[in-house]
Amino acid sequence: MTMKVSVLGATGYAGAELLRLLYGHPEAEVRHITSESHTGERIDALYPHLTGMYDLQLESMKKIDSIGEDSDFVFVCLPHGHAMGVGQALAGMETRIIDLGADYRFADTSVYEAWYHVPHTHPEAERVYGLAEIYREDIRSARIIGNAGCFTTASILALAPLAKQHLIDVNTIIVDAKSGVSGAGRGAKTANHFPELYDNFRAYGACTHRHTPEIEQALTDLSGEETLINFTPHLVPMSRGILSTCYAKLKPGIAPELVDAAFEKLYGKEYFIRLRGRGAYPSTKDVRGSNFCDLAWHIDERTQRVIVLSAIDNLVKGAAGQAVQNFNIACGFDEKMGLDFTPIYP
Amino acid sequence: MTMKVSVLGATGYAGAELLRLLYGHPEAEVRHITSESHTGERIDALYPHLTGMYDLQLESMKKIDSIGEDSDFVFVCLPHGHAMGVGQALAGMETRIIDLGADYRFADTSVYEAWYHVPHTHPEAERVYGLAEIYREDIRSARIIGNAGCFTTASILALAPLAKQHLIDVNTIIVDAKSGVSGAGRGAKTANHFPELYDNFRAYGACTHRHTPEIEQALTDLSGEETLINFTPHLVPMSRGILSTCYAKLKPGIAPELVDAAFEKLYGKEYFIRLRGRGAYPSTKDVRGSNFCDLAWHIDERTQRVIVLSAIDNLVKGAAGQAVQNFNIACGFDEKMGLDFTPIYP
Amino acid sequence: MTMKVSVLGATGYAGAELLRLLYGHPEAEVRHITSESHTGERIDALYPHLTGMYDLQLESMKKIDSIGEDSDFVFVCLPHGHAMGVGQALAGMETRIIDLGADYRFADTSVYEAWYHVPHTHPEAERVYGLAEIYREDIRSARIIGNAGCFTTASILALAPLAKQHLIDVNTIIVDAKSGVSGAGRGAKTANHFPELYDNFRAYGACTHRHTPEIEQALTDLSGEETLINFTPHLVPMSRGILSTCYAKLKPGIAPELVDAAFEKLYGKEYFIRLRGRGAYPSTKDVRGSNFCDLAWHIDERTQRVIVLSAIDNLVKGAAGQAVQNFNIACGFDEKMGLDFTPIYP
Amino acid sequence: MTMKVSVLGATGYAGAELLRLLYGHPEAEVRHITSESHTGERIDALYPHLTGMYDLQLESMKKIDSIGEDSDFVFVCLPHGHAMGVGQALAGMETRIIDLGADYRFADTSVYEAWYHVPHTHPEAERVYGLAEIYREDIRSARIIGNAGCFTTASILALAPLAKQHLIDVNTIIVDAKSGVSGAGRGAKTANHFPELYDNFRAYGACTHRHTPEIEQALTDLSGEETLINFTPHLVPMSRGILSTCYAKLKPGIAPELVDAAFEKLYGKEYFIRLRGRGAYPSTKDVRGSNFCDLAWHIDERTQRVIVLSAIDNLVKGAAGQAVQNFNIACGFDEKMGLDFTPIYP
Repeated sequence: MTMKVSVLGATGYAGAELLRLLYGHPEAEVRHITSESHTGERIDALYPHLTGMYDLQLESMKKIDSIGEDSDFVFVCLPHGHAMGVGQALAGMETRIIDLGADYRFADTSVYEAWYHVPHTHPEAERVYGLAEIYREDIRSARIIGNAGCFTTASILALAPLAKQHLIDVNTIIVDAKSGVSGAGRGAKTANHFPELYDNFRAYGACTHRHTPEIEQALTDLSGEETLINFTPHLVPMSRGILSTCYAKLKPGIAPELVDAAFEKLYGKEYFIRLRGRGAYPSTKDVRGSNFCDLAWHIDERTQRVIVLSAIDNLVKGAAGQAVQNFNIACGFDEKMGLDFTPIYP
Repeated sequence: MTMKVSVLGATGYAGAELLRLLYGHPEAEVRHITSESHTGERIDALYPHLTGMYDLQLESMKKIDSIGEDSDFVFVCLPHGHAMGVGQALAGMETRIIDLGADYRFADTSVYEAWYHVPHTHPEAERVYGLAEIYREDIRSARIIGNAGCFTTASILALAPLAKQHLIDVNTIIVDAKSGVSGAGRGAKTANHFPELYDNFRAYGACTHRHTPEIEQALTDLSGEETLINFTPHLVPMSRGILSTCYAKLKPGIAPELVDAAFEKLYGKEYFIRLRGRGAYPSTKDVRGSNFCDLAWHIDERTQRVIVLSAIDNLVKGAAGQAVQNFNIACGFDEKMGLDFTPIYP
Repeated sequence: MTMKVSVLGATGYAGAELLRLLYGHPEAEVRHITSESHTGERIDALYPHLTGMYDLQLESMKKIDSIGEDSDFVFVCLPHGHAMGVGQALAGMETRIIDLGADYRFADTSVYEAWYHVPHTHPEAERVYGLAEIYREDIRSARIIGNAGCFTTASILALAPLAKQHLIDVNTIIVDAKSGVSGAGRGAKTANHFPELYDNFRAYGACTHRHTPEIEQALTDLSGEETLINFTPHLVPMSRGILSTCYAKLKPGIAPELVDAAFEKLYGKEYFIRLRGRGAYPSTKDVRGSNFCDLAWHIDERTQRVIVLSAIDNLVKGAAGQAVQNFNIACGFDEKMGLDFTPIYP
Repeated sequence: MTMKVSVLGATGYAGAELLRLLYGHPEAEVRHITSESHTGERIDALYPHLTGMYDLQLESMKKIDSIGEDSDFVFVCLPHGHAMGVGQALAGMETRIIDLGADYRFADTSVYEAWYHVPHTHPEAERVYGLAEIYREDIRSARIIGNAGCFTTASILALAPLAKQHLIDVNTIIVDAKSGVSGAGRGAKTANHFPELYDNFRAYGACTHRHTPEIEQALTDLSGEETLINFTPHLVPMSRGILSTCYAKLKPGIAPELVDAAFEKLYGKEYFIRLRGRGAYPSTKDVRGSNFCDLAWHIDERTQRVIVLSAIDNLVKGAAGQAVQNFNIACGFDEKMGLDFTPIYP
């Protein structure tokens, strides 16, 4: 049952991480990897950690048709705006698409257009939002999966039980999120130059970050109420990992045990979600390199607020691991296939 | 006009930082430094960076009387609970006290007792809260100054203009704060062991951190309204620096320009507060090693919330630098004396 | 053919890393894990990253007999001096021992006693030195394997081809090695407290580090010449990884191609050694989390010296991974079993 | 007696660090700062940590004549190859030049040309090598000072006592040096992108780094013997700091006390050199932000080698601080002026 897969945009961090995970996947065979700026080079020339793991040369996406024909699945690891073209090019084929970018994440493409400032050229595409624990059933048969973003995965998973069980006032939600620098990609720029960020901490994208509407879409969907949130991302001087600290006002009279029960109900059987419980403090290193999302929550009886802490590896559960999880679901494989390993600590 | 000063508890990070700053202060002469666990040792045996800077041996605090008599000012850098004894021991002398701990920070000692779980043995002490930009006039003549805490300094300075001008609903305040690890002191424990924290990020003390009531006290004072907040600290894998991200709901109809004006009004003439403006992103490294507090703010018109970002060096403006600033005020010196230097970057 | 294995001293970093690797090993079943200070606790209470991976309680080593009887292999992850007792206790059983400490590394126990300052109580033990690429044949049937140390693995593998082919003057060897802090173990002490090491770099153990005689033993063995070296370790402010920079004078007339050929000859077929070639720069992150040793070399024609650069993950190829590799050899398994995965980057 | 000074190339790390130090210098007035790529911008737009410290706009170097005429001293913080033009342009003026680059470091410009691969256009310039502790007398009256490089400062200071006193065989010298990333400048490139270097360690420039001949020049000068060394730099995942680990064979019969005496003799009265003694381990953080060079040494009686450890801040004693020290000497000021402050720790 081995699936032929290809990775478009294999030289970014998400692409390279996908290659790491696919190496260990027993039912995936990597057929093509692409890069426009490094066409013809070997992947291990760009990523020496892959030395000996892949004997593949980077190809150009100009051959998207033949790549599509030779692939059961295409993983798109390109900047937003590029996957739509891929989706259109492969529209007539059986090839299925998992896009790690934002192009296929929004049900309402006008939201995409408003936040990403590009026209959506493929609004008619049938697509599902690729956050497995919430939209698993839709993913099974989807032809195009818009893999959830990194901050959004951590944040939606943190708040979903509360929104779905109507335990919180969704319009009091504040998500204060912190990410390692790999989330910004591999492109060198002064802002992400080593000495600028090392031993340093700062926020960015307050009120304007594009993951905001993606979180709002899911919370609106789950709660049934139109939801607007504040989302503020921060850069942590580390390579990997996201911690989302999510605040909301509990509805009057909600006891702590109801909060506990909501998490247990939604996630009690989820392998990749580890409920660390009320009062715990998950850390990004607890999940490093793995597809786990560790969740804990705190209730402040003085202010009647709940605080949910959510830790993921931005490149795994926040990108490549979630893509493989979606791939497994879409193929009917065991959801853990190729992802059943221990986080790396310390 | 040189002042004789002593540092009680000189072997912690705040004490050592105070020695760094006092070395460069033209009107302070360090007479005594104390440590109970290292009595008789040289300070540079414990802190080699001070090699050649001080020719002083650590003494025991058992001689607090003679230390007090030989000091115009005593800086107390001890864990909470110890400064009260110092205050009582020196009650009959002219010696003035600047306590970097929590003992003298609260007007209502029952708040102290509730959050610190120790009885307050010196409630009758005349004392002022040592946050210079807010309580400068009180500090001038104070005999006991309860130096403001690190998180609290960053957070109160961030929110004071808004609270004072009644621009926000104070009971919607959420402070999500991030600190370098030096804030936890020099005592070794597994939780702060290098490999545990490096490349790692986590929260701690949600809903229970002792800086919560200190922030609430100041905001209640400034706004005139009883204020309860949520405060969540996080550990950033770096040595120094605090960034506080502060959220609040703007009152209806408050225009962005009113917010700008409130910051300008309160801080326009403050040397140590650098208004980086609406839309900016101060970083902890911008202020590293200095007594500056860099402030910026963002307004989300969708949610009618204001987000204030506040960066300080936790050991300087959050501890030793603020102590020197208070010392300067109390002595009638130029407030910048010994503190007029550039942050160290990168 | 599943082997029953136990881990003595499972709460140190090497023990925890072994649990990470054994989780992914298809033919190893972890039966017992021990800790004297945490007897009765769950391993995931100490290492939350293992939450959900093991449903095991820590036992005391007092039951070493019954542990031994229930184990085909015992991995000893204890400080030096403890494995000898285990070796004696299990002497009459079929149980095989892989000691990650130093007790069984030396052919001449007087060398051990001179450098470790403890008497060797089990000198008669039949034992082999557990550096697979050099001593593989001996490992196959060994009952006690003294797993090679972390610095020593990186350094011996770097120099072995040159020593074995007699291309260098072995008494000019200088090994300047750099390690992440996990090499110092999990015990908290001020020297390894986060703020002390972060953004800091220093040497330690110059001329006296205990890995010195271990490297000398192997190089003497390989070259046939009595070898004394200088070995200087340094602490890098990172969690994992070792880079050894090894210097030696080439014998007169040795051409660069002979150096290349020596590496190719010894390691050309070794899966875990990746020859990055003459002129390359392996980095610790290229091998992070994996059992690879990446090697490169440089020749200075001006000084007739060769410089070999060797990168490993100290907890994997330098400890737990090498132990699993030795386990595979001793069991007759594929040497890569449970170790065939990609390093984690970035 | 205030000197008018200008900084050419103020937007690199060395230039910005010079501005940090000059801010605190009582007898230096910064008149002009230049940048070709940021002409017309404010320095604090590029370096927010300088907000409020300088009210200066960046100028173009096209006006070098008028800048020179308005300056007693010009500090050149440009890439190598540019200072020669400045030297020629200012040849007829009284303006003195301190070049932080390599152009004026070599007595024999053919060495410069061989290692830097550019022709030297100003070989006739009268110039001195700006390493104050070794060449102080020459610096007093020099018109052009070729400020010593960062690695070279740490390495020459480490080895000078031994070379000068003929205690070592200079052709056995190996310098294994480690630097924070700020040494590579502020220019963004993938190799120095945050996620690439964080939690990573590697060597570079083995056998070819341009600081090699600079160290050799000084050691040849000091020892009177033609000296060839091996120099291998490494990148440490930190912002600032250099540790040089220097190895050499002691001449036969040299007792440890002779080594101690050599250090004491050369440096006993040097303020900026702190002799931490035989057996100590200076760390880069002990000197961070300061102009100190901390030295310690170890003697291996087994191999008859001496190992010298040398720690500096690459941007201070290795660049801007040394420039100010040279400036003070050249002006006849107290050598510590503007540099008499404590390192910042932790």
